[in-house]
Amino acid sequence: MKKNAFYAQSGGVTSVINATAASVILESKKYKSKIGKVYAGKNGILGALKEELIDTSKESKSAINSLKSTPGGAFGSCRFKLKSFEENKKEYIRLVEVFKAHNIGYFFYNGGNDSADTAYKVSQISKKLCYPINCIAIPKTVDNDLAETDCCPGFGSAAKYIATSTMEASLDVASMSETSTKVFILEVMGRHAGWMAASSALARIDQKDAPHIILLPEIRFNQIKFLNKVKDVVKKNGYCVIVASEGVKNSKGKFLAESDRKDAFGHSQLGGVAPYLAGLISQKLNLKNHWAVSDYLQRSARHISSKTDLLHAEAVGVHAVRYAIKGLNGVMPIIVRSKSEKYSWKIIPAPLSKIANVEKKLPNSFISKDGFDVTAKAIKYLKPLIQGEAYPKFKNGIPHSQKLKLVEVKKKLPNWKD
Amino acid sequence: MKKNAFYAQSGGVTSVINATAASVILESKKYKSKIGKVYAGKNGILGALKEELIDTSKESKSAINSLKSTPGGAFGSCRFKLKSFEENKKEYIRLVEVFKAHNIGYFFYNGGNDSADTAYKVSQISKKLCYPINCIAIPKTVDNDLAETDCCPGFGSAAKYIATSTMEASLDVASMSETSTKVFILEVMGRHAGWMAASSALARIDQKDAPHIILLPEIRFNQIKFLNKVKDVVKKNGYCVIVASEGVKNSKGKFLAESDRKDAFGHSQLGGVAPYLAGLISQKLNLKNHWAVSDYLQRSARHISSKTDLLHAEAVGVHAVRYAIKGLNGVMPIIVRSKSEKYSWKIIPAPLSKIANVEKKLPNSFISKDGFDVTAKAIKYLKPLIQGEAYPKFKNGIPHSQKLKLVEVKKKLPNWKD
Repeated sequence: MKKNAFYAQSGGVTSVINATAASVILESKKYKSKIGKVYAGKNGILGALKEELIDTSKESKSAINSLKSTPGGAFGSCRFKLKSFEENKKEYIRLVEVFKAHNIGYFFYNGGNDSADTAYKVSQISKKLCYPINCIAIPKTVDNDLAETDCCPGFGSAAKYIATSTMEASLDVASMSETSTKVFILEVMGRHAGWMAASSALARIDQKDAPHIILLPEIRFNQIKFLNKVKDVVKKNGYCVIVASEGVKNSKGKFLAESDRKDAFGHSQLGGVAPYLAGLISQKLNLKNHWAVSDYLQRSARHISSKTDLLHAEAVGVHAVRYAIKGLNGVMPIIVRSKSEKYSWKIIPAPLSKIANVEKKLPNSFISKDGFDVTAKAIKYLKPLIQGEAYPKFKNGIPHSQKLKLVEVKKKLPNWKD
Repeated sequence: MKKNAFYAQSGGVTSVINATAASVILESKKYKSKIGKVYAGKNGILGALKEELIDTSKESKSAINSLKSTPGGAFGSCRFKLKSFEENKKEYIRLVEVFKAHNIGYFFYNGGNDSADTAYKVSQISKKLCYPINCIAIPKTVDNDLAETDCCPGFGSAAKYIATSTMEASLDVASMSETSTKVFILEVMGRHAGWMAASSALARIDQKDAPHIILLPEIRFNQIKFLNKVKDVVKKNGYCVIVASEGVKNSKGKFLAESDRKDAFGHSQLGGVAPYLAGLISQKLNLKNHWAVSDYLQRSARHISSKTDLLHAEAVGVHAVRYAIKGLNGVMPIIVRSKSEKYSWKIIPAPLSKIANVEKKLPNSFISKDGFDVTAKAIKYLKPLIQGEAYPKFKNGIPHSQKLKLVEVKKKLPNWKD
């Protein structure tokens, strides 16, 4: 029996999540006897709850294809976690009402570990509310912290951006260091896991190249050791490049970025590990420094996406559809790396019960003994993920992104009140 | 008579200053009867004073060519301004000693307006110390604030980076705005002139696209007007993207970035306009926000350099050499834009006396009436400068930059003591 599909984007977006969306839409078209329309949720699962469904069949083929080179979440994402069935049954009942009203039998949820949890809960609707649904979570997160999968679509591109930016900025600092800036700090994302900070190590050609210090959230910050290391590097090398994860914590387990700085209003300053470290280096070492915080730039930099990452993002979309029409439920297409020397990978399904809410941190074997670097093993893991370029088309000097029509399906139900 | 040439990089570097260096070196080879070797100053003019001269003839042809795609200053730059002849005659005498010792008759100084001042002073050595020198300043600055020239090599690439990053990040914010971030702030360089902040306007396809607010150093910051504008944009658009120049000043003429915030040590916080504005928006409007500071990333991002800018950078190098062998002294090759509708340009010489120490700010006609945007006239000026891509080669997932040998010429003089 032919059913429609629901696809939604969830959590922080990436430079290639729309490539996954394009794959879901295009692959679905191949199974015309099983899949009718693909409705995209406006702002993630909120679109399902509010019955705000975007009819992707109204978009031109070129618009769908252009999603492959457009960063951000084209249909809107959200930070919204479903409560458990017991805590908030009415949310699930509403979902089933919307699914019924629009003949939705396939549910694709494109997100990280919170989203895997939501998808896992939705997958249980079949059993608990006797509504048949094939629910597939599709991996996506620059944080690279999903369990089971070898890596997460979105991460490889952010990693390529970070490695490239670290390399480029370090050449800048190197040339200024004789009479000006001695220390440069780049703050990257990764609140709980250090994958992104670790990827800066790919900037090196020689061992003595930048970054000279990597600060990971897995390692508690030791101010004395850190300052000694900075001093040492500047003495030996003339300058020092530091890449710091936003999630670095002090010995008391408090984010450095939330340390006791006050703003003009007397309120705690929200952050920035980079300006915090810059202040420390200015005061304690009196070394001229510069700092950058890449924030959203690193996860939206489609212009420097990794080709490998893009292929991953497309493949998980394709396989999600295949799993759904095969009748799978409560699974995620994950990336499995072959054990051979040459990098290769395949997609297999993994149960969401093993993925939901689990956070994969950098393993100890990836972190150097002094805690300021990553190991050769980490480099071996990371390197394949940033290989290949996948430039978007440019128009008028900037990457071209085609705007979608975003036509919403006519509502059939009363408004949702949460 | 055959003379050697001295080339040096000065001030903040750019993603294409090494392309100028490559052009100077390659063009010089064409005039074998007039130009012997090209010596590059190690760390700018300090290399001349310290007699630290890098023999560029020791580099392979591929190494010189690879300079065209390597950001930073390959020979080292410096922040060092010669005093006037009257104030510090011994510096000039030392320069002449070094020039004599190494048969240097051509002096190429690649920098901004401070460097044009230094080059202007060096050009007067001919008259004041009777040592014949052909001194040519070559324009370079991401700040785009040099007088006479239509634009400055380095700026177009930074502008392309800023426009691209603003566009990409705005797609990210747009997708998160329903349940998360409402305001995104990107801080860009430009301490005294708003050219870089202005270039973010090139991110727009439609008038309502990001950036929604541009804060320029030419316009004093008005907190009430600013907060009202942010509130308005978020109300109408769902989110607001702000691009702020690091040089924005408050009504008292003080940098916002140096406002009265204190760090953990009780010292004034050095900066960040972006975190300052973020704090303001959190406290006064209670809107969730994110901020990025691109710092060195924007001026070293060779991976997203503008092809037009790269061509400018190469052309000024080529013409500098031609002017020198024609016997010109105290000039700079500048870029002149044709008056035709289709963008075209040529290089002509301009006297350094008109360029040294002059700072070209955004003209009033480029700034919108409310002070939060640029005009159509500004867009018309800026747009051609970011056209075309000039991707570097990638190796192992990151842009490939070949390392130079940097062989120094044997010293002939006693050490320099300043």
